[in-house]
Amino acid sequence: MAVATTTVDSPEAAQRLAQAAVQARLAACVQVEAITSHYVWQGQQEAGAEWRLVFKTLPQAVDALAQWLHAAHPYDVPQWLVRTEQAAPAYAEWVAQQVDMKK
Amino acid sequence: MAVATTTVDSPEAAQRLAQAAVQARLAACVQVEAITSHYVWQGQQEAGAEWRLVFKTLPQAVDALAQWLHAAHPYDVPQWLVRTEQAAPAYAEWVAQQVDMKK
Amino acid sequence: MAVATTTVDSPEAAQRLAQAAVQARLAACVQVEAITSHYVWQGQQEAGAEWRLVFKTLPQAVDALAQWLHAAHPYDVPQWLVRTEQAAPAYAEWVAQQVDMKK
Repeated sequence: MAVATTTVDSPEAAQRLAQAAVQARLAACVQVEAITSHYVWQGQQEAGAEWRLVFKTLPQAVDALAQWLHAAHPYDVPQWLVRTEQAAPAYAEWVAQQVDMKK
Repeated sequence: MAVATTTVDSPEAAQRLAQAAVQARLAACVQVEAITSHYVWQGQQEAGAEWRLVFKTLPQAVDALAQWLHAAHPYDVPQWLVRTEQAAPAYAEWVAQQVDMKK
Repeated sequence: MAVATTTVDSPEAAQRLAQAAVQARLAACVQVEAITSHYVWQGQQEAGAEWRLVFKTLPQAVDALAQWLHAAHPYDVPQWLVRTEQAAPAYAEWVAQQVDMKK
């Protein structure tokens, strides 16, 4: 199973992307959590509230999800990280039923 | 080191599972965090509060932990995802001391 | 891309470590999130609030980051876990610009 993550700067944007990804069957489920991000932007140290989205999907749907996400995301250069995890068989089956494998 | 995750729909269930896993020495530590899950259930788009449990354990204890978790979990098909991470030597040693390797 | 995690027992310590890691260019960005940890300490079952730090950096900077972290961290044996994730090209480029590769 593939687990992909991005971040946005409002809970509304997080909810909008999460709902759209599930509705488009690009991910079986999306989890949203509140975080604080520390980074440097244009030479200045910054800290701000963000919302992390965690997408659970099939490895074969990751490219379509990434392409959709970059078009829909409010940032120019969004965080986009993908890892592979082992899933329990029943859970993997549920994910496979949710995700549109023709994407 | 193995890192496994599941989700439940109440903080009480999260605490109960976390405590039981540590008490049974199936995991060295369990972290709980609040999330919002977006998914489709029986054709309907749903969003709801959940609590994610993150179990830190030894690779050789993952099967026993998964078996116990599926018996103890309130859902029919719980999320169950496992990934491998590299641990600092002193932290890996602490985990090895906490987990019962005969499980 | 490398993703490393630790935990501390106050939001002030989390902020201090996150800011210092970014300032030292050991990580491109650090995310902080509130969690509850369940574990056994000296034979007693414990649960307490902690803050998780998630460092995004280059694989070649992980050793320097780990060495710095262990010197700066308030715990004797901090959690230190590192995993590898695949990054989108533009995001990987941004991280590479933030992290000092001579570290």
